[in-house]
Amino acid sequence: MELRSTSRTSARDPSAGDSRPAALPPAALPPAALPPAERLARLRLARTRGIGPVAAGELLARFGSAVAALEALPRLSARAGRPILPADERLARREMEEAGRIGASLVFRGEAAYPASLAELPDAPVVLACLGALPPVDRRMVAIVGARNASANGMRFASMLAADLAASGLVVVSGLARGIDAAAHEGAGARATIAVQAGGADVPYPAENARLHAAIVAGGGCVASERPLGARPMAHHFPQRNRIVSGLCEAVVVVEATQRSGSLITARLGLEQGRDVLAVPGFPLDPRAAGPNSLLRDGAAPVLGAEDVLAALGRHAPVPGPAGGVLPPPPGGPETLPDQDDRARMAMLSALGAAPAPVDEVARRCQLSAPAARMALLELELAGMIRRHPGNQVSLVT
Amino acid sequence: MELRSTSRTSARDPSAGDSRPAALPPAALPPAALPPAERLARLRLARTRGIGPVAAGELLARFGSAVAALEALPRLSARAGRPILPADERLARREMEEAGRIGASLVFRGEAAYPASLAELPDAPVVLACLGALPPVDRRMVAIVGARNASANGMRFASMLAADLAASGLVVVSGLARGIDAAAHEGAGARATIAVQAGGADVPYPAENARLHAAIVAGGGCVASERPLGARPMAHHFPQRNRIVSGLCEAVVVVEATQRSGSLITARLGLEQGRDVLAVPGFPLDPRAAGPNSLLRDGAAPVLGAEDVLAALGRHAPVPGPAGGVLPPPPGGPETLPDQDDRARMAMLSALGAAPAPVDEVARRCQLSAPAARMALLELELAGMIRRHPGNQVSLVT
Repeated sequence: MELRSTSRTSARDPSAGDSRPAALPPAALPPAALPPAERLARLRLARTRGIGPVAAGELLARFGSAVAALEALPRLSARAGRPILPADERLARREMEEAGRIGASLVFRGEAAYPASLAELPDAPVVLACLGALPPVDRRMVAIVGARNASANGMRFASMLAADLAASGLVVVSGLARGIDAAAHEGAGARATIAVQAGGADVPYPAENARLHAAIVAGGGCVASERPLGARPMAHHFPQRNRIVSGLCEAVVVVEATQRSGSLITARLGLEQGRDVLAVPGFPLDPRAAGPNSLLRDGAAPVLGAEDVLAALGRHAPVPGPAGGVLPPPPGGPETLPDQDDRARMAMLSALGAAPAPVDEVARRCQLSAPAARMALLELELAGMIRRHPGNQVSLVT
Repeated sequence: MELRSTSRTSARDPSAGDSRPAALPPAALPPAALPPAERLARLRLARTRGIGPVAAGELLARFGSAVAALEALPRLSARAGRPILPADERLARREMEEAGRIGASLVFRGEAAYPASLAELPDAPVVLACLGALPPVDRRMVAIVGARNASANGMRFASMLAADLAASGLVVVSGLARGIDAAAHEGAGARATIAVQAGGADVPYPAENARLHAAIVAGGGCVASERPLGARPMAHHFPQRNRIVSGLCEAVVVVEATQRSGSLITARLGLEQGRDVLAVPGFPLDPRAAGPNSLLRDGAAPVLGAEDVLAALGRHAPVPGPAGGVLPPPPGGPETLPDQDDRARMAMLSALGAAPAPVDEVARRCQLSAPAARMALLELELAGMIRRHPGNQVSLVT
């Protein structure tokens, strides 16, 4: 992992990669809220098994709306050669009612409140369920992540750093885990923090942080999740949650982390998303220093205090305004793109392997244009034949 | 202090600066030993009050030998407007006899055993008194320096690092101080270490390290100093010693150091000498981490183990062979350069201030050629009107 080039020089280079699902034209401001029918359809799309966030984004781009995408689903399902049943409308209505009942808001990609930094990811969640309100979209955000089994000094430092960053007007994002995460939320104070959960936003995890969870919501902060209210977190949800933590932020600060920790996964996801990754140094004989120190060795900037994070943010412009989440239909209007012919899909299949490979590279190898490759991958994903990975990578399902 | 450009990119760029006192032509191999009369004259020159190492080097370059320089001293003294009395010949003879008696060797700049890396400095010592033998000139050297008041972990790490570097064939150089220095010498083992003392090589300092001092000498290592045998160290000798520690080495590794420590002075001197500076990270709440972490912030590479030091050395070629210390006479032979006219000296004086300024910059401001500027500075130094500083800087004596 070489951080210098990605995190320092090209972190905000708009030409750096294929991180957006489509080349966005100068976008109109997104609506405060999408029409109720479209919100319901987007929630159903988000909850449909076999359609991940990348495929959902592609379908929204291709058909212009979730309503149209759901209408097209039987035909797509036939082409995919397996049944893709949209999530039940009554279940989606029930989730919306439940959200209203407990005071949670559902924020959809394409609505004004949806964070712009998140919306630019190819695997941006279709919906975020939020207890409390997301901060205004122009607030700059920084993730602080680290060991659950943190040292007292590590937690003290994380808390001080978060407090100083909050005092500078930043929002501190973390995962509500024990140790560094909790210290970061506490240091930032409720009004300047977002906790992103792997399970439902209303399911405090771990249980020992239930009071912190309640304090964040009551104090004017936000607990967010892409998963349905009430959902229990499962192991594979944590890396998915981590992509949201880093995706919301311009920079990820790692405080104490062993070499194979979730915090380093978050850092890696952040790098793949073009975020700045920074690390709090530690003495090499301390195992909790191994993670941050290996990031330093790879070129991450050291964080000795809030000034280092502010300096990193100063090296690039803030995330652009709330263009976030508006997926325009392809030129010529929705559904003008032809269905993919089998040749493109076969070429993609033969170019793919069990190990994840970047979409760009696979497309080049198949001599397919980027839009043709994306369409072939969408159909292969709907057919359950490929798997998406962070950093716009794909592999065969074996 | 910005480390990146100096330590990483230009550390070994031969065009990077005026670090040598003269543009050296491809040099003949230096003699194993200079003639006895010249050795005696060089020792007298080194011990003459009012002639620092830069002036001594300039005089050797100008007159081709110390014998000739001493002969010219009365005339130079007259021009300087103050008496410059060469060190007494009998004292120099006595120092040589004393060295022979205790088994110390005097190694002169211009002799084969004189370290090539040191010889390239404008303020290289004219002589090194050595107990034990200097390593062969092709051995690569690394300095490990740090806090006297080191932590147990810090000393353990320094010792392990030194052992690993020694096992890789490197010589570890340090200052025989308490804490990190002592741990580095001990870890490297006598045969792979050089201790550079601020006082005489035969005066163990601090006294608590007398056993380590004896073990290094007895075990085949080296204790070196530019000062006379028997000299007690004084406060201002320590930074002078530090320039030798860094000057001997290709890289300086700082392990635990507070923000205003001698170790950071050594690191700064190393940077000015074009050496790689590396730092062992530490947790920011530990005051002993402040020094290394500030170096990391300025771009020093982190050291998590010996492999990081070896990687740094791998980024540049080893120090060139034993061209060391041979100061050729100016083209046309010794003493062909005319005495400086007063105008050049007056221009230099008016361009200088109480704060140290780089020689190159002052020469440019005076519109003097580099040789003319060096000659003017030599005369001003002999006149006691300027002071030399590390990094080829000069200031007025006020």
